[in-house]
Amino acid sequence: MRVMLVDDEPERRAATEAPLRLLGHEVVGFSTSTSDLAAAVKRHQPDVILVDVDVPGRDTLESLGQVTRDRPRPIVLFASHSEPETIRKALQAGVSSYVVDGMNPARLKPIIDVAIARFEEFQALRNELEETRSKLADRRDIEKAKGLLMKRRNLDENGAYELLRRMAMDRNLKLGDAARTLIAAAELL
Amino acid sequence: MRVMLVDDEPERRAATEAPLRLLGHEVVGFSTSTSDLAAAVKRHQPDVILVDVDVPGRDTLESLGQVTRDRPRPIVLFASHSEPETIRKALQAGVSSYVVDGMNPARLKPIIDVAIARFEEFQALRNELEETRSKLADRRDIEKAKGLLMKRRNLDENGAYELLRRMAMDRNLKLGDAARTLIAAAELL
Repeated sequence: MRVMLVDDEPERRAATEAPLRLLGHEVVGFSTSTSDLAAAVKRHQPDVILVDVDVPGRDTLESLGQVTRDRPRPIVLFASHSEPETIRKALQAGVSSYVVDGMNPARLKPIIDVAIARFEEFQALRNELEETRSKLADRRDIEKAKGLLMKRRNLDENGAYELLRRMAMDRNLKLGDAARTLIAAAELL
Repeated sequence: MRVMLVDDEPERRAATEAPLRLLGHEVVGFSTSTSDLAAAVKRHQPDVILVDVDVPGRDTLESLGQVTRDRPRPIVLFASHSEPETIRKALQAGVSSYVVDGMNPARLKPIIDVAIARFEEFQALRNELEETRSKLADRRDIEKAKGLLMKRRNLDENGAYELLRRMAMDRNLKLGDAARTLIAAAELL
């Protein structure tokens, strides 16, 4: 696996890098500061990100949040700081595993495995929510578009549906997208 | 907080219980085996569950899964076993934190804090999915019930909607439930 190691202390970084290589991982894209983390993630496409800091500050958490929005990845955060508020913010920024004082070569493998499993579980739930939301939006928009057509073209429900369906087919759109296009156009006209 | 400690080795249990009490937690409901875990959770209503086992076996994971279905709680699992497949099954059973070889009194507090934050984050996402699904089901069922009324009572869409809304009000039901009642009745008739 490609592991991105984010650590601003060279000695600690070396101490983590060695066992990672022993585990067979490719260690990529050190980022001594986390200011360019999102760009580094885009460039290196790591499978997992390990962040080793004493205190995860606002900048670090913002960078991680941006990574999570742009291209979510399993993130392990090793920190010595463990205020509940910091933990909560880190999880919100997409951290899969928050490990306090736990950087220990023998535990690296299970920690990474847990973070990946946790990440996949969370992503699956997120995707399901996204899909369900999108189905709900489609239903709403299709109903709205049908209502518009019924009123403006003096059609019954079936007629309006048929017209919308044909518009979608002609323009090679999904029904929901056709409905949204129609609603947007109706607002202009 | 009320912490339920599940551990089948008395010595290890005692070693974990002491630091938990020092942290100010009330330790409740030891369960030497996990066979009656769901019942114990129901009885003691713990805020968090700590499970300490070498290998989380099928029985343990099934018990935890039942707890998660019945009354979800933050669950920390300490284990020495760390096969990715076991980790995945444990997360599916609702384990919030899977900690390998990490039972260490100094780390108990942050581990519990992380598990609770993780649990709350996951529950929030799950609730949102549940709500969105229920809205989608409502829309589907309301449309279906309207269609039924339009056909059988020869009504237009507004008339059908009005009738359904009145039925819901008269019977003190939500619109979605009224729709489902109507659909079920129509299937009988």
